[in-house]
Amino acid sequence: VTDTTLDLQKLDRERVAVLGTTKPDGTVHLVPVVFAVSGDTVVTAVDWKAKSGRKLARLTNIEANPTVSLLTHVYDDADWDRLRWIRLDGSAAITESGGDYEQAIEALVAKYPQYLDRPPEGPVIVITPENISYWEAKD
Amino acid sequence: VTDTTLDLQKLDRERVAVLGTTKPDGTVHLVPVVFAVSGDTVVTAVDWKAKSGRKLARLTNIEANPTVSLLTHVYDDADWDRLRWIRLDGSAAITESGGDYEQAIEALVAKYPQYLDRPPEGPVIVITPENISYWEAKD
Repeated sequence: VTDTTLDLQKLDRERVAVLGTTKPDGTVHLVPVVFAVSGDTVVTAVDWKAKSGRKLARLTNIEANPTVSLLTHVYDDADWDRLRWIRLDGSAAITESGGDYEQAIEALVAKYPQYLDRPPEGPVIVITPENISYWEAKD
Repeated sequence: VTDTTLDLQKLDRERVAVLGTTKPDGTVHLVPVVFAVSGDTVVTAVDWKAKSGRKLARLTNIEANPTVSLLTHVYDDADWDRLRWIRLDGSAAITESGGDYEQAIEALVAKYPQYLDRPPEGPVIVITPENISYWEAKD
């Protein structure tokens, strides 16, 4: 069990994250995503809801610039000592079929019962971690 | 009351956001922030906790590239129909004193009782909105 594995386990306990990608003009694009750990990677899918005629910005952005950041955080209005976040910086790839794709969908469905009846059908973003950082208010 | 004013009022109901800035190398930097609406701008401060010898990445990034994005989102594990987000893209400036600074601190303290005993002491990031977008799962 390497440090990265432990970090990913910790990250996987969170239910939602914000994915940051870089737009073609060099500015930031943010979107909340559900995600799961699949092997040594973090995966998130485009589900039925998000599908539309035009390609999602996050996919276009990643094709042009694969460096992404994923942030989970906990906010507690009643106790700012409980604030904490985990940030994963890494390199993203897009897959639409094959073993990695199947494994990613499996990880997402296993984590989110919401996906059981209707697994995501869109492309999967596979993020290979390069750095994981933490912050806790109590430190 | 313009549309932007209504959008900002809606945004201001949320308690926490993720701020995305662009690093000097062109990649994304994410950090959760508390924020408030101050006039036609959105403000967030570096508080005592975050102060340290070295300058925070978000400040260095904004000095080099003022285009930022701020995202608030609601996640509900029990009901994905309740998922929603608001995203504000805009241009950021940093202020450490003067009228804008005082007004920003006032707005933050008014919104967050947590700041009452100990208002933020660091620089304030003032974001002028260029675009505000919404997403709701139910749409």
